[in-house]
Amino acid sequence: MKVVITGGAGFLGTALAQTLLESRSLPGSDGRPQQISQLTLIDIAPSRLAPDSRVRALVGSITDPNVVEQALEPDTDAIFHLAAVVSGQAEADFDLGMRANFDATRLLLERARHGGRKPRFVLASSVAVFGGALPTMVEDDTAPTPQSSYGTQKLLCELLMSDYSRKGFVDGRALRMPTICIRPGAPNKAASSFASGIIREPLAGETAVCPVSPDTLMWLMSPSCAIGNLLHGQSLEPEALGNARVINMPGLSISVGEMVDALERFAGAATAKRVRWEPDPNIARIVNSWPGRFATPRATGLGFKADANFADIIRAHVDAAGLRATSNATT
Amino acid sequence: MKVVITGGAGFLGTALAQTLLESRSLPGSDGRPQQISQLTLIDIAPSRLAPDSRVRALVGSITDPNVVEQALEPDTDAIFHLAAVVSGQAEADFDLGMRANFDATRLLLERARHGGRKPRFVLASSVAVFGGALPTMVEDDTAPTPQSSYGTQKLLCELLMSDYSRKGFVDGRALRMPTICIRPGAPNKAASSFASGIIREPLAGETAVCPVSPDTLMWLMSPSCAIGNLLHGQSLEPEALGNARVINMPGLSISVGEMVDALERFAGAATAKRVRWEPDPNIARIVNSWPGRFATPRATGLGFKADANFADIIRAHVDAAGLRATSNATT
Repeated sequence: MKVVITGGAGFLGTALAQTLLESRSLPGSDGRPQQISQLTLIDIAPSRLAPDSRVRALVGSITDPNVVEQALEPDTDAIFHLAAVVSGQAEADFDLGMRANFDATRLLLERARHGGRKPRFVLASSVAVFGGALPTMVEDDTAPTPQSSYGTQKLLCELLMSDYSRKGFVDGRALRMPTICIRPGAPNKAASSFASGIIREPLAGETAVCPVSPDTLMWLMSPSCAIGNLLHGQSLEPEALGNARVINMPGLSISVGEMVDALERFAGAATAKRVRWEPDPNIARIVNSWPGRFATPRATGLGFKADANFADIIRAHVDAAGLRATSNATT
Repeated sequence: MKVVITGGAGFLGTALAQTLLESRSLPGSDGRPQQISQLTLIDIAPSRLAPDSRVRALVGSITDPNVVEQALEPDTDAIFHLAAVVSGQAEADFDLGMRANFDATRLLLERARHGGRKPRFVLASSVAVFGGALPTMVEDDTAPTPQSSYGTQKLLCELLMSDYSRKGFVDGRALRMPTICIRPGAPNKAASSFASGIIREPLAGETAVCPVSPDTLMWLMSPSCAIGNLLHGQSLEPEALGNARVINMPGLSISVGEMVDALERFAGAATAKRVRWEPDPNIARIVNSWPGRFATPRATGLGFKADANFADIIRAHVDAAGLRATSNATT
């Protein structure tokens, strides 16, 4: 079977590709496990994956119909759509966000529709679809009222994908992902970028700026948990979803202050003191519009997973990054 | 001030235009009442309005960027966007629905954004945004999960208009209209077309087919009430709306059987017997996905109105149509 990952050279895309190449198979559009014969990675940046005869790494923008046509062959069975312009950038450049986040998704859906295979289409959506006046606890049926262009664009994509699924054009499933933490590498233009930075940079001996207040509540998921949930989302039978193709993911509710406390317990006070608290109203406005606490009985019932605690997330990051951090988590 | 009505040659558009020409003024984009210097009606059909020096009647499709550019001049202060491909047609022709209902709205919003006036943009949305598993009573914060392409497209437009408003590009307000009943004229391809037909045709001495069961609950609004609410929606100050630009309209909750009972009380058993009950699963599926009962405290608080009862709606239709129906409503 042929699989496509958009944003396939990004951090999550690369990790997902590695997992797929190791596991070698995936449920096809008919639900039966099939060998992965071709894995297409499409991204504006080149892939850093080790060479593999099954990998087709394309460099190009999915805002370009020719690129989408090349990336999604008519016999594609599964699509993981991870590519996006991140929240801070979509807020600063509305037109870029509409093109990259909405129009590109529509191009992908159209191409998938006309392939004729009704491929499983996994859309990485976001808790950023929520905003404004919200209950303390977001429920599975809470109405999304986004207060950012990124959140609006993700919600437009969810709705379009749901109608494409209802019409039988694709077999879609949209997972509303929490903030992924801890991302490796450099900060990006996501308003949530700090959530990784305030742990990652201090652990690497560098200072990090935290642009929101310590009591800001976050809804988090570790990278490995996210990969597991994306794969699980692809594996679900359409009958398990019915006409409700959008699922709030489970997550870990924790305040930014508690995250830095966990860092201190893990690596000591000197490390935690590398976090500088410098409020940025533009970032805080977007981040504070996102909910920090969800009840997710539907996702749990469908078999999606959450991280158990933040200390484990720090430890997994340190292990993956090969950092020689002196953990004092057991003291 | 310059005002634009899309779908301006349609039934509601024509009635709205007549009301505007009589009232002569409207709140401008600064909120102060202004004389209407120009009223542009854009429609694929020619306008049937009596000649008036203030009226600019354009024939063309708002799916055409050139037509939109001509219709919305940079100094346009108010837009009533009523044009749409109706529910039955949007379900039968997905691509037409996306073009006419979504892409055209996006063209209008873009044009309004770049005019620089931040015009008041009134979007006629629909209760068709709701569907699927719904509570008995739809509340102001019930999550919309449309089960038709028409409902999906209207919801996409609401979201886009909301983000355009949040960004300060336009001053938008989307009114989720109930089924408008009783429309004069011929049946159309709306799944709800029967709701007018089962009253209008029998009153005119003709038979009418009802494609849904008598216990189907409808959420209705009369044409004159709809005109009043569209104008009221335009007149609201942006501060009254905040970031919540979408409003469930109040309405009249009544079953189709009760509608025909009201017809019988108004015009007699012989008239009511002109309704033939012939279930149509395609129409019933769409209509049954719409809710028939709402609690609308927000709309009521903002000053929107509902019809008092169905007998008054029948009477107003008979008066407007000049029918010489023998009402026995007082017997």
